[in-house]
Amino acid sequence: MDFTPKTTKYKQKVEDSFDRQKFMEFISAKLVKVTPGYCEIHIPYNNNLTQQHGFFHAGIIGTLADNTAGYAGFSLMEESSSILTVEFKLNLMSPADGDLLISRSNVLKNGRTLTICRPEVYIVKDGKEKLCAASQSTLIELKDSADGNNRNQL
Amino acid sequence: MDFTPKTTKYKQKVEDSFDRQKFMEFISAKLVKVTPGYCEIHIPYNNNLTQQHGFFHAGIIGTLADNTAGYAGFSLMEESSSILTVEFKLNLMSPADGDLLISRSNVLKNGRTLTICRPEVYIVKDGKEKLCAASQSTLIELKDSADGNNRNQL
Amino acid sequence: MDFTPKTTKYKQKVEDSFDRQKFMEFISAKLVKVTPGYCEIHIPYNNNLTQQHGFFHAGIIGTLADNTAGYAGFSLMEESSSILTVEFKLNLMSPADGDLLISRSNVLKNGRTLTICRPEVYIVKDGKEKLCAASQSTLIELKDSADGNNRNQL
Amino acid sequence: MDFTPKTTKYKQKVEDSFDRQKFMEFISAKLVKVTPGYCEIHIPYNNNLTQQHGFFHAGIIGTLADNTAGYAGFSLMEESSSILTVEFKLNLMSPADGDLLISRSNVLKNGRTLTICRPEVYIVKDGKEKLCAASQSTLIELKDSADGNNRNQL
Repeated sequence: MDFTPKTTKYKQKVEDSFDRQKFMEFISAKLVKVTPGYCEIHIPYNNNLTQQHGFFHAGIIGTLADNTAGYAGFSLMEESSSILTVEFKLNLMSPADGDLLISRSNVLKNGRTLTICRPEVYIVKDGKEKLCAASQSTLIELKDSADGNNRNQL
Repeated sequence: MDFTPKTTKYKQKVEDSFDRQKFMEFISAKLVKVTPGYCEIHIPYNNNLTQQHGFFHAGIIGTLADNTAGYAGFSLMEESSSILTVEFKLNLMSPADGDLLISRSNVLKNGRTLTICRPEVYIVKDGKEKLCAASQSTLIELKDSADGNNRNQL
Repeated sequence: MDFTPKTTKYKQKVEDSFDRQKFMEFISAKLVKVTPGYCEIHIPYNNNLTQQHGFFHAGIIGTLADNTAGYAGFSLMEESSSILTVEFKLNLMSPADGDLLISRSNVLKNGRTLTICRPEVYIVKDGKEKLCAASQSTLIELKDSADGNNRNQL
Repeated sequence: MDFTPKTTKYKQKVEDSFDRQKFMEFISAKLVKVTPGYCEIHIPYNNNLTQQHGFFHAGIIGTLADNTAGYAGFSLMEESSSILTVEFKLNLMSPADGDLLISRSNVLKNGRTLTICRPEVYIVKDGKEKLCAASQSTLIELKDSADGNNRNQL
């Protein structure tokens, strides 16, 4: 789908928010692409991020899915709005056994208040990508809040 | 609900699996309690685990919810079984603004193959606990698999 | 949990809305109980409501779960507000094989805008109740809307 | 995605199961299309199927989403297998205000045991289709069960 951003600073806004997330730096996540209604984040393999079988932990997969959904949605919101994840659902489908984890999210519906996204997470091994998880998530736009924290308002 | 474990080693089994998850050590998660059909994990506040407002990142909340659900379910499975998360859904309800994050999960249904759990995540601030997230998740038991990785079997 | 309704007409409001749902009459659903933050709906067995094995159809189970969640939440909202289901997740756990289907929903969190509920659906056979499904759902309150339809606003 | 059915009778198998669901006849649902990994069901508008604003009830939308997901998945399973819905999540996005409700489901992942689908529900008004709901669901294949009821096995 083709979306028109409400602010020309949509990319800057996403990058600024991403850079303020200390957890992204801690897990070496890279914000690779932001276009209106789309976001892509990568994480290279690192022993610290693993579950009991040595693969990427489901928590990392969920983190990526949630963040790409949130920023895909955030790219379509007003400059003065902040965004919060209301909820998400994640299906884990294949072992996250590989060198690089990639999450990509599109926006399915961008409403006045609520935005619905469908992130997909891929694992790359020997140069080959495989779908390993799929999510569906609900985001809420908080107007005139300058990305402050407003979950208490909900 | 009262559950009878299928192995007297249910606690050892959970602790061993938890200890093999490098990601748990990386985020300083502590396995605090395991009883049949119940698991509790804590994470003290740490700047590395934060989102853009300085609170615990949703990815950490999801990680805790998923892990407590998994280990609550795993505590009821055969000694020779391994467990995988099929999927989970997470509602974020209040800002995770505090000193300690606690996830507790009960088992709602322990079937032959599938187990359903309802983890709840609490944030502790100034000694007071507040519910900040709630999840519902589906787990699958893989028999005779010795906690090896078997997601490809699904 | 104990909730204080914002209007003394909370029960009337729920009953009026329920009575306007033609689908409830069509499937012979009865609104059995409404208290602040709680709702219970029953449906007696009827051949028309069955799936391929002659049990209650999952669609009926989902309908009941969604409606009890919605009305549990609606009971806590302003008199001039309407309510919409944002999303719900439903786990089907046991065959809905019995004479009566009962859904009960509590409110887990009643926020200013969003309300989270956890409905549970029980099947009654030979006088014995069994949990057959569990749900977690997100509702949104639309202020000053007099229960008109406002999903386009979202 | 392109799927190869495991039985040449995949369409017959789906139609037979659909015809045994009395609830489908009760709500005048039509099985419109079945191809390997895809299913489409339609329901014409009928006053009996409405919620409080006179639009299609969310329960009908959930029923359609669940059934198309189930039959999309069932079309890829062994002739001697039966299928059960493990769980589904449904986002309601636009009012189901129109003359015809259409659900279409694709299969996202067809595993040995679990199948993941992403149904979408559209409302048709004045000849124009609009996405009104999106779901993500998990199905389980029960081998050698001849479509008998086996939820107790889970």
